[in-house]
Amino acid sequence: MIKKILIANRGEIAVRIIRACREMGIETVAVYSEADKEALHTKLADEAVCIGPAPSKDSYLSMDRIISATIITGADAIHPGFGFLSENSKFAKLCEDCGITFIGPDSDVISRLGNKQEARNTMTAAGVPVIPGSTEAIYDVETGAKTAAEIGYPVIVKAALGGGGKGMRVADTPEEFENAFQTAQKETEMAFGDNTMYIEHFVENPRHIEFQILADKYGNVIHLGERDCSIQRNHQKMIEESPSIALNSKLREKMGYAAVTAAKAAGYENAGTIEFLLEKNGNFYFMEMNTRIQVEHPVTEWVTGIDLVKEQIRIASGEKLSYKQEDVHLSGHAIECRINAENPEKGFRPSPGTITDMYLPGGKGIRIDSAIYSGYTIPPYYDSMVAKLVVWAKNRKEAIRKMQSALGEIIIEGIDTNVDYQYEILHHPDYLKGNIDIGFIENMQVKAQ
Amino acid sequence: MIKKILIANRGEIAVRIIRACREMGIETVAVYSEADKEALHTKLADEAVCIGPAPSKDSYLSMDRIISATIITGADAIHPGFGFLSENSKFAKLCEDCGITFIGPDSDVISRLGNKQEARNTMTAAGVPVIPGSTEAIYDVETGAKTAAEIGYPVIVKAALGGGGKGMRVADTPEEFENAFQTAQKETEMAFGDNTMYIEHFVENPRHIEFQILADKYGNVIHLGERDCSIQRNHQKMIEESPSIALNSKLREKMGYAAVTAAKAAGYENAGTIEFLLEKNGNFYFMEMNTRIQVEHPVTEWVTGIDLVKEQIRIASGEKLSYKQEDVHLSGHAIECRINAENPEKGFRPSPGTITDMYLPGGKGIRIDSAIYSGYTIPPYYDSMVAKLVVWAKNRKEAIRKMQSALGEIIIEGIDTNVDYQYEILHHPDYLKGNIDIGFIENMQVKAQ
Repeated sequence: MIKKILIANRGEIAVRIIRACREMGIETVAVYSEADKEALHTKLADEAVCIGPAPSKDSYLSMDRIISATIITGADAIHPGFGFLSENSKFAKLCEDCGITFIGPDSDVISRLGNKQEARNTMTAAGVPVIPGSTEAIYDVETGAKTAAEIGYPVIVKAALGGGGKGMRVADTPEEFENAFQTAQKETEMAFGDNTMYIEHFVENPRHIEFQILADKYGNVIHLGERDCSIQRNHQKMIEESPSIALNSKLREKMGYAAVTAAKAAGYENAGTIEFLLEKNGNFYFMEMNTRIQVEHPVTEWVTGIDLVKEQIRIASGEKLSYKQEDVHLSGHAIECRINAENPEKGFRPSPGTITDMYLPGGKGIRIDSAIYSGYTIPPYYDSMVAKLVVWAKNRKEAIRKMQSALGEIIIEGIDTNVDYQYEILHHPDYLKGNIDIGFIENMQVKAQ
Repeated sequence: MIKKILIANRGEIAVRIIRACREMGIETVAVYSEADKEALHTKLADEAVCIGPAPSKDSYLSMDRIISATIITGADAIHPGFGFLSENSKFAKLCEDCGITFIGPDSDVISRLGNKQEARNTMTAAGVPVIPGSTEAIYDVETGAKTAAEIGYPVIVKAALGGGGKGMRVADTPEEFENAFQTAQKETEMAFGDNTMYIEHFVENPRHIEFQILADKYGNVIHLGERDCSIQRNHQKMIEESPSIALNSKLREKMGYAAVTAAKAAGYENAGTIEFLLEKNGNFYFMEMNTRIQVEHPVTEWVTGIDLVKEQIRIASGEKLSYKQEDVHLSGHAIECRINAENPEKGFRPSPGTITDMYLPGGKGIRIDSAIYSGYTIPPYYDSMVAKLVVWAKNRKEAIRKMQSALGEIIIEGIDTNVDYQYEILHHPDYLKGNIDIGFIENMQVKAQ
């Protein structure tokens, strides 16, 4: 059994991991940058080691320093949290080579899943649906039309070298294809001096639906239901919930089966997340697998009752999963809002600074994961997320009411936050109806202008 | 449906009720004393009315002022919380007479259950076990011995006019009876100038086990399992948990049935609690019924998922219970520690004052119900309980670990609290083993001397 864990992270996730360790009777070592001397994770851990100056490359991303701190303090495992080195296969490999338990999957699994094309091939081979697309470069409209018909409309024509939306056109029907292809190819030639095109099925207004899985060293894999993370701004999730109202039990079973299949195909171990795009018609496509704990893990914890961080540690310790698929039941509804130190009225500009006064709500069905306190100075070097407000109630309607009420109670003075912006989303008619997809925020902003 | 509720209380329970109302879309009116101008409940409610000076008799116990505030603000219901006027049948009657919905049972039910002898008779008639005792005064040892044999040993001989432990003796066996009776009677004569004695079955080292019930206006009554509230100091509960490890499912069913029977026999409506003493041998005895929400209701909420305050409001609105007994499942284990502003090293002397700095833990399985914030001045006029720390985990062992960890995180500066004292209990070998009864604190203190 693991006796001492070094947490190679900061902020609320470091605090989250320290708490789990303490409850398991495991000693903790925090690492901190010079800017994080007064950070909560530094204060809460049993030991704390300064690993360098503020810029992440000199501290939280410095593999050598983190490995040294581990060896010096005699920790036998590292929990990487999320971000930083959490999905860095080189770091996982370094841990393996040093005889330190990396709390996550094997380095080669991280590496293989990190390569998008390899991950896609693995999933295709395992029968997990991926977005249908051309397997070879296309240069002429006839081949293109034939391929599009095979893939299924609507399709999107893309420049092989594309980016920034250039050289992309959607064709909803075969009639539209020729024009779409030629326009896209012309644009591609102009922009990139190249006429190589690809064609993919166009996933219209999809939801972002991800499945949490747990896999032990003995081939046992279960899923813990889904999270609907469709509320995103610039691919950054803002609100997550579980379950998703877009899934009935049949679709949940189908997608859950695909998620478990994906994890098995990857030879996966520990906690992981399979991200899917879900179309209105119920078709879903594998996007990628995240090989770490997610920011939004609390919503799954609340509807299943399972402590994911503790499970990560148990799995890394070589324990067998203590849950079978039939032991997992989703109960009630959980929603998480990310509270960021940023100013939505000024283009979401980060707002570091000193918190002069703070009041956070509490009571039934309220969970707050944060690393801030009154008097704390948020350093300008890191991610702007400073707290996660999570609510649980017996159904989505009550959970939304609870979130509305809780957001209304929050007081954070001295810095700007996105609390009012979240409050606005939580009162948006489409959000209330559950009528959401990954374009929600963009549409909301366009309409507001 | 109720549209606007006046909360005739203060502190964390007032905040708790305001939150439930807000989540249900019900407007709230707070009442506050001059000392509570800066109190959280005053700030959080939609409206707030000052009802007089600090002493409770001039504000929170002033029926006239509270009724006036209700009429002036157009509230259609009053939630009394606990303490203050919550079990005052005269107040409930006044509400009824003024056409205001009192969120609780009928005034005559409160009145009948408030009379200990009448409550005991009602329970006996309904077949709910009460502590066996003599039904008439006893003056001589022969009648006493005969009665004791009928009641069952061990017995306790008590002065009819007794108090303060004077004129009380326990006899474990018939052989000990004569001496016990005569000593007790002699003491009684000396102390009270009277020789009237009573005999009761002596309940040895019992646990305090109470059952939460919900009853609607249509005769539907369910129980939500038990709370073990054995950790008490001077009859004041300090720690409560659910479920109790002293109950197996068979005993839970038996006691739950007795609780439901008790509520039905009393013609009870709304949320209520039936308190029992539980002997080691599994015998249990009705003590009293509390006709209001309890301080310790969160532990039941967490293991059942049911929001008791919302249920109270729904029942008072005339809704039928939406749960049947078979819908109620106890899941995991919840523990509550009462955080009091008091100094355990100075005889638990209350410690009002200004909170200069405060940090409360959060994260998975942590619930805090409080009405304090950094900079808040706790007035000296009211109960010393300032927060409730509630934890949930999948079993008792993990819940205890979580509570240990959470108590260790709390920082409340500027006043004294019982946090360290609670921490000590949470590490006591007998508490860890669940080897607890209502004498636990007393024994712990005796041993510490």
